[in-house]
Amino acid sequence: MPTEQEILETIRKIIPNSKNYLFDDAAIIEKNLIVTTDTLVENTHFTLKTYTPEEIGWKALAVNLSDIAAMGGKPLYALVSLSLPKHIKIKWIERFYKELVTCAKRYKTKIIGGNLAKSREINITITVIGKAVVKTPRRGVSTRSNAKSGDLVFTTGTFGDAAAQNYKTKTLPQIELGQKIVRACFKHPPALMDASDGLADCLIQIAKQSNVKIIIDRDKIPISQNTKKAVEMLNKELLNLALYGGEDYQLVGTASRIDCKKLENLKGIKIIGKVIKGNGAFLKQNNNKLVKLDLQKTYEHFK
Amino acid sequence: MPTEQEILETIRKIIPNSKNYLFDDAAIIEKNLIVTTDTLVENTHFTLKTYTPEEIGWKALAVNLSDIAAMGGKPLYALVSLSLPKHIKIKWIERFYKELVTCAKRYKTKIIGGNLAKSREINITITVIGKAVVKTPRRGVSTRSNAKSGDLVFTTGTFGDAAAQNYKTKTLPQIELGQKIVRACFKHPPALMDASDGLADCLIQIAKQSNVKIIIDRDKIPISQNTKKAVEMLNKELLNLALYGGEDYQLVGTASRIDCKKLENLKGIKIIGKVIKGNGAFLKQNNNKLVKLDLQKTYEHFK
Repeated sequence: MPTEQEILETIRKIIPNSKNYLFDDAAIIEKNLIVTTDTLVENTHFTLKTYTPEEIGWKALAVNLSDIAAMGGKPLYALVSLSLPKHIKIKWIERFYKELVTCAKRYKTKIIGGNLAKSREINITITVIGKAVVKTPRRGVSTRSNAKSGDLVFTTGTFGDAAAQNYKTKTLPQIELGQKIVRACFKHPPALMDASDGLADCLIQIAKQSNVKIIIDRDKIPISQNTKKAVEMLNKELLNLALYGGEDYQLVGTASRIDCKKLENLKGIKIIGKVIKGNGAFLKQNNNKLVKLDLQKTYEHFK
Repeated sequence: MPTEQEILETIRKIIPNSKNYLFDDAAIIEKNLIVTTDTLVENTHFTLKTYTPEEIGWKALAVNLSDIAAMGGKPLYALVSLSLPKHIKIKWIERFYKELVTCAKRYKTKIIGGNLAKSREINITITVIGKAVVKTPRRGVSTRSNAKSGDLVFTTGTFGDAAAQNYKTKTLPQIELGQKIVRACFKHPPALMDASDGLADCLIQIAKQSNVKIIIDRDKIPISQNTKKAVEMLNKELLNLALYGGEDYQLVGTASRIDCKKLENLKGIKIIGKVIKGNGAFLKQNNNKLVKLDLQKTYEHFK
């Protein structure tokens, strides 16, 4: 089977002007509208045994809203496409949809359409349309490519929580904080991304697409007390969870030192590293040695 | 298993203000933007044995563009969400995408994003964003509900072709004609719909949502010479194919008599009936008797 990377490269070669799109959490179209789409598939992202209809309903929308948050946007509309197998009961659909609507209301998003189809496994594809709250100076260009040498690296929230709780945490898109971030940095748009695939993935992607080197401090990675406790109990490697666990749906970004002063005053934001000339994303250990972050390896493999 | 109608009714009860949306081919949002989404599922809409990657790629986008045509819109952007099983080869994806891009270019649509996921069967959900070419006087309100007593019923193209060719016809969204129709009827927006589920379905839906009675003349239903010949050969019931076959992706609508004079001058448009007070959609036979159109029955069952 081709890897996701191979498929993406194939597709990008075929699509005209794909460098303007297809490299970010969401695409920016005219009138400062932001569009994003994400899919949950049964047996890939969830099973009916491990997740309630409510958990699936909330998450299906929330992961899309997180992509809007990563653009500093305000969500407006959602379209919900459901492919359902024969055995699904109306009660399941009702419970799924009620929680999805609860999530939509929480983030002031209107459900304006969708599609129903028959399938052998559940497939939920949601598209969300939002609005940039700050006029984007570079329309259609990836915010992942905005990191500059001299910037600092910041994050919202804590990392490793989803993995420590076996991915049963509720996805809480950082909509309000995302908007505050882009407003604080309105002169120089920040690099910004949501950590759906983990903190390390964010840092590697931003470094790659901005052509810079990123170094974060091991001790500054925000990890919650609960996760520290859970991991002690489970005897798992804490740093691996925080770096590679994924599904925390926090925001990771870089901004100028001046803007980061403003960001530090926002609740939940922490400065964890810096951007310099070079390539790649690195973890600075307590002994000051740099360890390259690599998605193929977890921390313990290259320690 | 719950029927599609039961599922839709359940969903509509849960979603706030669903009467403003969810009853049309596409939703109209601010700035006259039109959004629509549609899904093709393996084993439901196609199999890898019966359809080439090119046929699936073209159709996946074209059925969405047809929904934009049904709003008289101009397509702008598309997001392509692909769920793919392990066994799919990169060559298949390449062929699928190349033809999808050919369709996108033909209808001047930019592909600006999407999603990739793993699944057990292929699921292709595409969202298209377009623009209304005539400012819609009633934003967010179904154009299926625009039919008024006194209107005439018109169609584009011919019906029954897809069914007569075992649904292997190429879907050609009536984008240009859709725009011409709404421009010709700019004072009084027409009822308009695409005949993805067949001519009878369109007439029933428009009658229901506009609270009117629709009568079409049996002899005026446009049927191509090729389909007439094919059906003779296959010994199928011609009228059933034209009314219930579906997948012709032509447009069906109603407009005032004055506007219909203008529409008749457009190539491919034919007047096939009228709108009066009452309820339901009817076929006027050669003996002047009216037969009610019913999706539960094909023509031969109630003749």
